[in-house]
Amino acid sequence: MYIKKRRLGRGVAIVGAGVSKFGSFSDKTSRDLFIEAFSELKQSVDRGINPKDIEALYLGNHIGEYCEGQSLMAPIIAGYLGMIPKPATRVENACVSSGVALREGIIAIASGLYDIVLVGGVEKMTTLSTEGVTDALGSALDALYETPAGFTFPGIYAAMATTYMDKYGAKEEHFMKVAIKNHNNGALNPKAQFNITIKDIMNGRIAKAKQKGQPIPTWVDEMEFLKDPKANPAVAWPMKLFDCSPITDGASCLLLVAEEVAKSFTETPVYVIGTGQGSDYPLYEREDMTTILAAKFAAQEAYAMAGVKPEDIQIAEVHDCFTIAELVGIEDIGFFSPGGAIRAVEEGITARDGAKPINTSGGLKSKGHPVGATGTAQAAEIWLQMRGQAGARQVPDKDISLALTHNVGGSGPTCAVHIYERR
Amino acid sequence: MYIKKRRLGRGVAIVGAGVSKFGSFSDKTSRDLFIEAFSELKQSVDRGINPKDIEALYLGNHIGEYCEGQSLMAPIIAGYLGMIPKPATRVENACVSSGVALREGIIAIASGLYDIVLVGGVEKMTTLSTEGVTDALGSALDALYETPAGFTFPGIYAAMATTYMDKYGAKEEHFMKVAIKNHNNGALNPKAQFNITIKDIMNGRIAKAKQKGQPIPTWVDEMEFLKDPKANPAVAWPMKLFDCSPITDGASCLLLVAEEVAKSFTETPVYVIGTGQGSDYPLYEREDMTTILAAKFAAQEAYAMAGVKPEDIQIAEVHDCFTIAELVGIEDIGFFSPGGAIRAVEEGITARDGAKPINTSGGLKSKGHPVGATGTAQAAEIWLQMRGQAGARQVPDKDISLALTHNVGGSGPTCAVHIYERR
Repeated sequence: MYIKKRRLGRGVAIVGAGVSKFGSFSDKTSRDLFIEAFSELKQSVDRGINPKDIEALYLGNHIGEYCEGQSLMAPIIAGYLGMIPKPATRVENACVSSGVALREGIIAIASGLYDIVLVGGVEKMTTLSTEGVTDALGSALDALYETPAGFTFPGIYAAMATTYMDKYGAKEEHFMKVAIKNHNNGALNPKAQFNITIKDIMNGRIAKAKQKGQPIPTWVDEMEFLKDPKANPAVAWPMKLFDCSPITDGASCLLLVAEEVAKSFTETPVYVIGTGQGSDYPLYEREDMTTILAAKFAAQEAYAMAGVKPEDIQIAEVHDCFTIAELVGIEDIGFFSPGGAIRAVEEGITARDGAKPINTSGGLKSKGHPVGATGTAQAAEIWLQMRGQAGARQVPDKDISLALTHNVGGSGPTCAVHIYERR
Repeated sequence: MYIKKRRLGRGVAIVGAGVSKFGSFSDKTSRDLFIEAFSELKQSVDRGINPKDIEALYLGNHIGEYCEGQSLMAPIIAGYLGMIPKPATRVENACVSSGVALREGIIAIASGLYDIVLVGGVEKMTTLSTEGVTDALGSALDALYETPAGFTFPGIYAAMATTYMDKYGAKEEHFMKVAIKNHNNGALNPKAQFNITIKDIMNGRIAKAKQKGQPIPTWVDEMEFLKDPKANPAVAWPMKLFDCSPITDGASCLLLVAEEVAKSFTETPVYVIGTGQGSDYPLYEREDMTTILAAKFAAQEAYAMAGVKPEDIQIAEVHDCFTIAELVGIEDIGFFSPGGAIRAVEEGITARDGAKPINTSGGLKSKGHPVGATGTAQAAEIWLQMRGQAGARQVPDKDISLALTHNVGGSGPTCAVHIYERR
């Protein structure tokens, strides 16, 4: 794969970030969720920001048509933020919609056109039933060749998982370990949809059984709980309920500025020093289902631009829409060799206190996955961790100067990778 | 309105363009349509282009979810073009989706990231019934406050038309004159969905009546034909059937390159010297329905960047989704004062042989309006006119060195304006 060393016309920094509470909110629209995230962003800019000074909005949204009957969402959101008549553009690249919105914001500043750009994403998913959301998300598969064959996303990722098991000897336990780790992190994130450990979920079920006078489950630990098909039924084997990210309402946003003006917003900006984006064929046309070419290409372009290597990166948020996706993802970004993710989860290397913490936010699995908002929510976690503001989930004993986000769309036909630096 | 003089990091040129046949094609998908446009583009690049050398794709598509059950369309199209693993991004800003894709392509080259970018758009609309398409397009209205009140696009533009009539004394005849002019142009465009004049439509109906032994209509000219409510029934008064652009399948694309490499593709590039984009509130929140703020802002930003004035522009493609939209559009881009468009159509100033030819392609009205493809199709017309390759519809007695496109989304919450130069 030929990787061109790409350069941006000028540097870009994050000087503010905001994330709404993630969850299921019957009383909130996309607009409400985005305003909630933007309100936090405004508070986060150390020296303040007037919305009138923001020059453009790039908004990621994936299934607004299905969930709210709303296309052309960007100018509507811009109106609520007080940004009229500034340009507002919606990017739709499935679950990497706001990852690409972030990239477009970076490019637009680098072009010289703007100094101050808002990027973000939003998704309001719980207006639909689980079946309705599954169908809506299914629009990101190939509508000619995959959806008519009966594929939905759990099945697509299950196919990747069985291939990965077959090729590298992974067991169901390895997927479970990813879920346990990410819930351990999400339990420390007050914004997370499931801010609870799997052990606490298990203990809650035991307590409930006792209270109701029902037979008391004999689980001795989370792993036994996850192996019990009544507690953790298969969705599409080997992907079980606790291998799947949830259906989530949420929004997130970042304030990007040109590097040369960053210090007028904060003394501690987070610089974006690498951006990469790649594409691939739909799953049915791929030669290898245990890796995602779009992610490898995006990562290699981002590393080449940043001039750093995978071993230099201290923490990362990786796209764990299903637990198998985290294993494939940490290999695609070069943290581990093909199949090497198995040992990584076995040895706790990717735990919050491990050598290479992955998904300190709780990941999509525990924090939640409002698809259009996920990309910029990942970057918002990096913003907090790099500034030492991640509270109870701050990674211990690390002064983080290099971090990475990996955001995948659909079954992997699109991916964005970004690399961040604190100087 | 404060207009910032914006500058791009480096110049951008169009070195190729392609447009599919516009119409209703039950045997073609979006993919087929885009490949058709791209095949023409490849032929149009004087010194050739290898798809492997294209570094990124920006694709405009508005209602693919509704019409083909397909989101995440950009990487799928990129796959068919042989562009994997290069980045591919879908922009969705209603009917300005590919106008904004063009802008993003320009910005991306200006940023220094790429030298060669493909931008385009596609829409496959005829899979749905007229009611179905009307509902799908209606997703670009405000889904909380406009659609539930019963508004669809003909009603929205009818509201603008009655306000415009009330404020400036326009008559239904002025709208009809726009339709007649654009059909006169579209009759000379072999790609147009309706490449026929309204006079020929009228004569065809007369001939048919004679043939069938029915009463022979007494229309003496197109205007009488258009005033006959049987021939031209109201859709939403004063917008009648022949005031509305049709439902269209089609695709279009442009090859953009950095100015410094343009001459290695062709001796006669078309330079993009101005780009502007603006936003506005949904119609229900606007103070004035006879003008579109997003368009005025976009135009003024584009003029400021290009360093030219409205009077310098020799031809323009203007967003005539409804005939009223062309009148408002030519005022918003500063060609005529508010209300001045009335005199312009009365005096034939905007005709192909007039002082300020508008929509030589036939416009959305006659050429067709595959919504996601319209923005780059407008630019493709400018490409042909500026290079003297527009065939029978080439504007007479003009050597065109400055031209403009005006592309509006929804009821006007978003607009992109571009200015082109031939040196």
